[in-house]
Amino acid sequence: MYKKKLFFSAVLLCSFFTCFSQNDDSVLIKRISDDILLNGKAYSNLYTLCKSVGQRLSGSAGMYKGEAWGQQALKDAGAQNVYLQECMVPHWVRGKKEEAGFKTHKRGMDPSFNVLSIGNAVGTGNAGVTAKVIEVKNFAELEQRKNEVKGNIVFYNYPFNKTYLRGAYGDAVRYRSGGASAAAKYGALAVIVRSVTAATDDNPHTGALRYNDSFPKIPAVAISTKGADELSKYLKGNYKNDQFYIRTNCVMLADTIGHNVVGEIKGTEFPDEIITIGGHMDSWDPAEGANDDGAGMVQSIEILRAFNAIGYKPKRTIRIVLFANEENGGRGGDKYAELAKTKNENHIMAMESDGGSEYPRGFGCGMTKAQFAKVEPWKKYFEPYDADKFSFSEGGGGGSDIGPLQTKFKTAQFGLSTTAQRYFNFHHSAIDVFENVNAQELHLGAAVMAAMVYLVDKYGL
Amino acid sequence: MYKKKLFFSAVLLCSFFTCFSQNDDSVLIKRISDDILLNGKAYSNLYTLCKSVGQRLSGSAGMYKGEAWGQQALKDAGAQNVYLQECMVPHWVRGKKEEAGFKTHKRGMDPSFNVLSIGNAVGTGNAGVTAKVIEVKNFAELEQRKNEVKGNIVFYNYPFNKTYLRGAYGDAVRYRSGGASAAAKYGALAVIVRSVTAATDDNPHTGALRYNDSFPKIPAVAISTKGADELSKYLKGNYKNDQFYIRTNCVMLADTIGHNVVGEIKGTEFPDEIITIGGHMDSWDPAEGANDDGAGMVQSIEILRAFNAIGYKPKRTIRIVLFANEENGGRGGDKYAELAKTKNENHIMAMESDGGSEYPRGFGCGMTKAQFAKVEPWKKYFEPYDADKFSFSEGGGGGSDIGPLQTKFKTAQFGLSTTAQRYFNFHHSAIDVFENVNAQELHLGAAVMAAMVYLVDKYGL
Repeated sequence: MYKKKLFFSAVLLCSFFTCFSQNDDSVLIKRISDDILLNGKAYSNLYTLCKSVGQRLSGSAGMYKGEAWGQQALKDAGAQNVYLQECMVPHWVRGKKEEAGFKTHKRGMDPSFNVLSIGNAVGTGNAGVTAKVIEVKNFAELEQRKNEVKGNIVFYNYPFNKTYLRGAYGDAVRYRSGGASAAAKYGALAVIVRSVTAATDDNPHTGALRYNDSFPKIPAVAISTKGADELSKYLKGNYKNDQFYIRTNCVMLADTIGHNVVGEIKGTEFPDEIITIGGHMDSWDPAEGANDDGAGMVQSIEILRAFNAIGYKPKRTIRIVLFANEENGGRGGDKYAELAKTKNENHIMAMESDGGSEYPRGFGCGMTKAQFAKVEPWKKYFEPYDADKFSFSEGGGGGSDIGPLQTKFKTAQFGLSTTAQRYFNFHHSAIDVFENVNAQELHLGAAVMAAMVYLVDKYGL
Repeated sequence: MYKKKLFFSAVLLCSFFTCFSQNDDSVLIKRISDDILLNGKAYSNLYTLCKSVGQRLSGSAGMYKGEAWGQQALKDAGAQNVYLQECMVPHWVRGKKEEAGFKTHKRGMDPSFNVLSIGNAVGTGNAGVTAKVIEVKNFAELEQRKNEVKGNIVFYNYPFNKTYLRGAYGDAVRYRSGGASAAAKYGALAVIVRSVTAATDDNPHTGALRYNDSFPKIPAVAISTKGADELSKYLKGNYKNDQFYIRTNCVMLADTIGHNVVGEIKGTEFPDEIITIGGHMDSWDPAEGANDDGAGMVQSIEILRAFNAIGYKPKRTIRIVLFANEENGGRGGDKYAELAKTKNENHIMAMESDGGSEYPRGFGCGMTKAQFAKVEPWKKYFEPYDADKFSFSEGGGGGSDIGPLQTKFKTAQFGLSTTAQRYFNFHHSAIDVFENVNAQELHLGAAVMAAMVYLVDKYGL
């Protein structure tokens, strides 16, 4: 189907470094891709990361173990030099398991609900918060009912819209990130947020919030989708005037030291032109961060391994970066761009994989029109992999870790785009584990990333 | 991203059946698709099928339970008439668990291996088969070493080629389907076949073989990929001259009665023009046949449900068929085409989903060039769903159940194509269970099938 026989014969007919036909790029891309699909180490690297390191929340012991793993993995992949970039990171700690449920006179706390504190949130203190729950569908309803909010708990029950194949997360995550301050503005004591996931299950999903400093910082928890449906049913029934109790034990400690982990191969012709490729080291704490973003890290490292394995010497410097603190601060990405500025580096392209380990569908391309005019004809190389959806946007499109490079240098951005219909079922929850990653899909993602890096390395941008 | 707001406004501005703009088809396709993604019953139907019925091998009690489930599911989806088409099906029975391992003097059977009889195979009888194992990489090596085969067991250790993104199954399955007779030709007593899967695990995959009547029928088992690697290692080491023991307890009984389960909506304008849509009822026995092909059945049924739910009245007759015996005989597909011939029916299109429940990528289109010239411009409706890969082939492209309609009537064929990188990890094995199906991906497949059915119903072919 993919002219395999043709390519294979071409490789046999002419030795790799001596004979280049017009089909060079197809041949070399297939060579890289075949090596990744047959001999790739991304999946086994991910296994080690997930099972020997586990969660890697910024500031945690797991983060430091992850940094050690990353340095070793980069060395094993053949990076010529591996180093750390120090940066201060937030140090938020969940503390012991959260409690949430109706307080009735008859019983202790019944029914109770499975919740997770939202990252960066303040805790309730030992006394917890006890108040009535006001359910709202969305921010518009909050505005309409703002007079009822004071002294109560606001419950945002906004569903993940399954008809938005790409935009459902961005649409729903507003309640997790901004819901606490929006409710605090009207005097709420705490918020409960429906988990941002397409799944219907009892698995709550955490993630970061951002407080607006104009309003009090109030506790915030995520409730599972099944829990949200049940809570809503109770509130429409006998429990509507009952007191609800939430206790969370999280706390934001002082910033601590974290690191970007960097490994590179120097370019043979243009060593000062830098191509940055990365994923992020930190993960949320309920699981292993297998999809978010262990996958992005091991795919990035895999590109180095494959280039070395087939003997491809890049013209430009290929730098793999395992970014610190994407989840609740973005300090690693900021630090990386800041250091690039200080050192006056020339960054010609940056690529990020932070959309899960699924079957690739293409790239978000954040760059100038002129750059995209150069990139677009390369679609033909990605068609055999179904990864030919290139979505152009002058202002963005890469990812949050490489965003600061665009702000500072207008560095062209590529963000790996995946089918991602399963991703948000796992994302930021207890089931983001190695077992929910497919080896072949993970390796296909690495293969198409490597193909794009190869093209940009060869032709510039 | 998918002009949701625009479509939504359009739907609000004009009531559905009174005002049709130039955007009709986009609007209606989105309406169907949104209904499936938000209110779809395919996933819950699949749950019932998997957990209340389970395996549905032809001739088994599960097949009859499946037929009852199918009739009810079609009625629940709003089929106007539901009926059975009787056909004789093979009745192969696995019997008790297979045994396989080296027979050494010191121990009973050690090391032993996890194997599954290949479907349709004869059993070994109570005595089992005891012989040396000759490992071959492929048929070419079998030919080279044909003189060593007599009186021995042939072990085909042909790997699933992960670089063939679409063709790996077809490439490797030749050893499962034809390996027994190829080895029997040279006097082999039995064959062991490496499982046809990309996964590396201890999970053997069954499936059908086809004996060549010119040679003796010999027993055949599938070994897991890990088992195959281990067996190969043993055969290259101390065990190379040891006797291997296989006992299988399967038997082919007399043909028995099975049924295609059919449900339809009569067309309002052209009731005699029939559009057939289906998946197959039977599954292999080690699990629930969730992906193969529970998914195809519930997706097909979902089209009826969604058409009824939004009040769409098809012009042509839409007939959902849950085909009997795809796996080890194809008798249901044959019977369906035979009855169509007898009744002199006019079949204008047939569609099949039998490629797993994953994210859709498009359709295999088996039809005339003139028909494809009509279909190809419809790609634009499938782009928002990433299902715009239409692969044209005059002679085929649909699937094995609807193939006989093409042979008899040249009926145009559509086969749902999915990303399918996970499918063969589960396929024909103990892990083809409901838990390995994603609801949103399953429903997306149904949505793009429904969109194509809508277009063919509206414009003909």
